[in-house]
Amino acid sequence: MIKLMAVVQSVYIGDNSASLVKTPRQLIEVNLSGVVGDKHAGYTRRADSRNKEYPRGVEIRNWRQWSAVSAEELAIIAEKMGILEVDPAWLGANLCLAGIPNFTCLPKGSTLTFPHGTVLEVEEENFPCVNPGKVIISQFPHLGISPSLFVKASMHLRGLVGIVNRSGIIRVGDQVQISVYDLPNLSESV
Amino acid sequence: MIKLMAVVQSVYIGDNSASLVKTPRQLIEVNLSGVVGDKHAGYTRRADSRNKEYPRGVEIRNWRQWSAVSAEELAIIAEKMGILEVDPAWLGANLCLAGIPNFTCLPKGSTLTFPHGTVLEVEEENFPCVNPGKVIISQFPHLGISPSLFVKASMHLRGLVGIVNRSGIIRVGDQVQISVYDLPNLSESV
Repeated sequence: MIKLMAVVQSVYIGDNSASLVKTPRQLIEVNLSGVVGDKHAGYTRRADSRNKEYPRGVEIRNWRQWSAVSAEELAIIAEKMGILEVDPAWLGANLCLAGIPNFTCLPKGSTLTFPHGTVLEVEEENFPCVNPGKVIISQFPHLGISPSLFVKASMHLRGLVGIVNRSGIIRVGDQVQISVYDLPNLSESV
Repeated sequence: MIKLMAVVQSVYIGDNSASLVKTPRQLIEVNLSGVVGDKHAGYTRRADSRNKEYPRGVEIRNWRQWSAVSAEELAIIAEKMGILEVDPAWLGANLCLAGIPNFTCLPKGSTLTFPHGTVLEVEEENFPCVNPGKVIISQFPHLGISPSLFVKASMHLRGLVGIVNRSGIIRVGDQVQISVYDLPNLSESV
């Protein structure tokens, strides 16, 4: 197992059902169904266009309870798009971490442990779609850039989604211990 | 992604709270909290001695909603223990599959899709403990073998546990499509 350290730079809650933009907070509370008060919380959700292996609208397990991005990767996206910054809130992230250069590459099953005992588990990479691109270009209307530029610029940099393994709180400034487990079939199997 | 096929040889329900032995059925129903009527169902459970990273008794996500074994691996365990058979019911399994030689090696994130749409997802290898060994030796009292022999004989052969991604039923004789996703950081990362 590899251990890494990061810092919580900001946290957000998705309390506006009409927008993907989230609201910054000093702390968020999570329980085993997700971020308390966030529209993506729940043990289950409906399959959407991302879930090709399920009929659209069918009830499935909710493995997208939270969304996280990294400050370092957002800086790369901004540079690629030729803009000053990409605010985590514009991407609908619940938390933005600093200190992990290739955050989006953390494999499924990696865990994020916070000082008060909260544990999040990584489910999958969050693949970019055009909607956050629309939010971003609305912040820089004079540049005349296309929302689809975001999709290209943020591939493998758009962060991770996952589930909650243990309830608790997450505060701005928290140290986060990230555990990356050994890949299966490479070290364990006989 | 690698696709494999298996067949459901038997299914079981854990309806006896006093014993790990499960009861054979012709079909089981699963929903997003686990196997309906099984004592291991639930979105959450209490951390136990297997969960070294959590304080004992703390409420955590239940990633052990179901347990599965393979007929081929049980035959190897029986041979190693010098006994005629190991019944899946004695190990507390919910299902026994046939057709996958190294079933226990399927990595986390692999999915099992059944004919009626039910989807299970693999969480982790089920590491052997001594309790099923006690059940097994009670079936062969004349042999005078130790329950701990089971632990040694079944390492990396004791099957898998996991969660439910889509509700439905699982019947004896069902064909199962197993999807093993690419390992992260080997083919996807840039």
